[in-house]
Amino acid sequence: VTAEAFATTGPVKIIGAGLLGASIGLALTTRGIDVRLSDASPTVLALACSVGAGRVAEITDDEPHLVVVAAPPDVAGPLVIEALKQHPNAIVTDVASVKDIIAQEIAQAGADARRYVGSHPMAGREKSGPTAAMADLFAGRPWVLCPMEQTDSAALVRVRELAVDLGATPLVLSSVEHDAAVALISHVPQVVASVMAAQLTGASEASMGLAGQGLRDLTRIAAGDAGLWTQILAGNAAAVARVLRGFTADLEAVTKAVEQLAHTWDDPKALQQVARAIAEGNTGYAAIPGKHGTRQREYDTVVVLVPDKPGELGRLFAEVGQLEINIEDLELEHSPRQPVGLARISVLRGVGEELSAALQTQGWTIAG
Amino acid sequence: VTAEAFATTGPVKIIGAGLLGASIGLALTTRGIDVRLSDASPTVLALACSVGAGRVAEITDDEPHLVVVAAPPDVAGPLVIEALKQHPNAIVTDVASVKDIIAQEIAQAGADARRYVGSHPMAGREKSGPTAAMADLFAGRPWVLCPMEQTDSAALVRVRELAVDLGATPLVLSSVEHDAAVALISHVPQVVASVMAAQLTGASEASMGLAGQGLRDLTRIAAGDAGLWTQILAGNAAAVARVLRGFTADLEAVTKAVEQLAHTWDDPKALQQVARAIAEGNTGYAAIPGKHGTRQREYDTVVVLVPDKPGELGRLFAEVGQLEINIEDLELEHSPRQPVGLARISVLRGVGEELSAALQTQGWTIAG
Repeated sequence: VTAEAFATTGPVKIIGAGLLGASIGLALTTRGIDVRLSDASPTVLALACSVGAGRVAEITDDEPHLVVVAAPPDVAGPLVIEALKQHPNAIVTDVASVKDIIAQEIAQAGADARRYVGSHPMAGREKSGPTAAMADLFAGRPWVLCPMEQTDSAALVRVRELAVDLGATPLVLSSVEHDAAVALISHVPQVVASVMAAQLTGASEASMGLAGQGLRDLTRIAAGDAGLWTQILAGNAAAVARVLRGFTADLEAVTKAVEQLAHTWDDPKALQQVARAIAEGNTGYAAIPGKHGTRQREYDTVVVLVPDKPGELGRLFAEVGQLEINIEDLELEHSPRQPVGLARISVLRGVGEELSAALQTQGWTIAG
Repeated sequence: VTAEAFATTGPVKIIGAGLLGASIGLALTTRGIDVRLSDASPTVLALACSVGAGRVAEITDDEPHLVVVAAPPDVAGPLVIEALKQHPNAIVTDVASVKDIIAQEIAQAGADARRYVGSHPMAGREKSGPTAAMADLFAGRPWVLCPMEQTDSAALVRVRELAVDLGATPLVLSSVEHDAAVALISHVPQVVASVMAAQLTGASEASMGLAGQGLRDLTRIAAGDAGLWTQILAGNAAAVARVLRGFTADLEAVTKAVEQLAHTWDDPKALQQVARAIAEGNTGYAAIPGKHGTRQREYDTVVVLVPDKPGELGRLFAEVGQLEINIEDLELEHSPRQPVGLARISVLRGVGEELSAALQTQGWTIAG
């Protein structure tokens, strides 16, 4: 957190001292803000304090300006409602990854929604818990803000300041819009990746030896935590079910077409249907924003063979840097049973040839 | 192609002068082997010759030792059958990405299968055509060999030598095993990625702005060519349909459970079913071999903020190299609307803390 301007003022109370809560606490504490932490688990609470995320909240504390509920989706609602009651002058936010179910709980409880702003920082790590906390966790990440109808604009400004102070890019969506968006771009992809990865169980070693980067990329998120994802999917079940139904209907149509081709390999209608499905995938993929929020650009890609020993990748990038060519995207791919890696370097269109030629001159093997 | 030992001898005839055919031609020509090319398209043929992949095959040519059919799956079978007839002393192989349909065509035609070995080099590029050809295209890639029952072992040895000469790692599977394997690890993932990406069409810009690296990775292969993929899926329809049915059945079960949760968010059976699906995905993902054909190791991951200007990535890797730490895997992630990138560096377990600390000392911002 290197921003010169810092708007958030303390005291701040953080309820839930896991990865997100402790990271927020750490970022605020390093700016001198008084952060009070609470957690259902005394161990988690002690660990969060030990990493510098704040101090244990006391019953004798004066009133916080801001309360951040950083608890899983299935307990965030009740904790927000309690915080709104217990701290009648504080702005209250939560950082759970589903939003509408929490807004509904707050409305049903008749809690003071003027002081509540739901929020969702799109940040995380593979590790969890307070020991994985880092002040820069939110840097460069979107942070969705979901005010309710009754939310005061002053409360929205306050939570937006928190997001900006922590280096994130805030954007405002309704809780329903948020939930529909994350169902589409995160929750359903998680289900699809998990079910696809599950098909690999029990495959022969020979089959798996043919697995390439495409499969690894497709299923990477399938490594996600089952407990957390079950809570998220349950908390956003209606929106997830809607997107899943669209997916399954489209997939069923393709599956039927492929089954038809298994009988009649040149059935023109089935061929068309398969071709259309792949083409629609092309269109959908192109709709994913690339870097800097712009539409995906087409890059030139240069694939370089990299010997698998320390420093080789550094030498490669040092040489690319000397050419004053910026690397737009990069993937490392390891070949099965070969002591080399392939580095796929994406550069601006038109620069690929130059890069390829220059690297070959310097003795690199270009493999694509 | 830097191997000292080179076993393949000419003349070699290559039928189909696209990316794969021209790349094989290029690799052989640079070793002094006489390569004759043919292609249904005179333009493609001329381009392949101009990049040095070989010379135009003539009716007056003496007999080739080896014929490589490098044509799409839907024409490879007839071309192999013709080649076996036309060149009664040559070993014939093809490099199409489906194998059993071709073996069946050969058996039905009563062609001389003793001299035929089906093969599938698991290599490709985003670009296609002879101008994208490169001698090193196959370096470090698996190359599947599918002899038929009648295939002479001498023919198998010959095609295996070609694979090894071109830097690939050969492995022998039956055509049925091959097709089942690629259905699972390549063809069905392609369909799943395409159908998932298609769901994104028409999504709001705000939704798409939340898309992260997970979605990009999941759908990357959805950018694949619709014409080629339709041929591949049609050529392997039975095996693809079988895997797709398993996938759709599992997905249907999860979808029903999520729909149940939309009504009763704490239904214990539905929660269990969702949790099991995610957990089974964990298991399946862990079955994908990591680098060097070993089981996926758990790495430490360090996420570094990289300013988006030339040379920064080079500077980063040069500094990692000086620490004598080998980068096991690497992903670059660009944040929406932020002029920075995040480099996810995977290093051997236990080395992450050291790397993280050292980079922080050198002024890098660690973000995960």
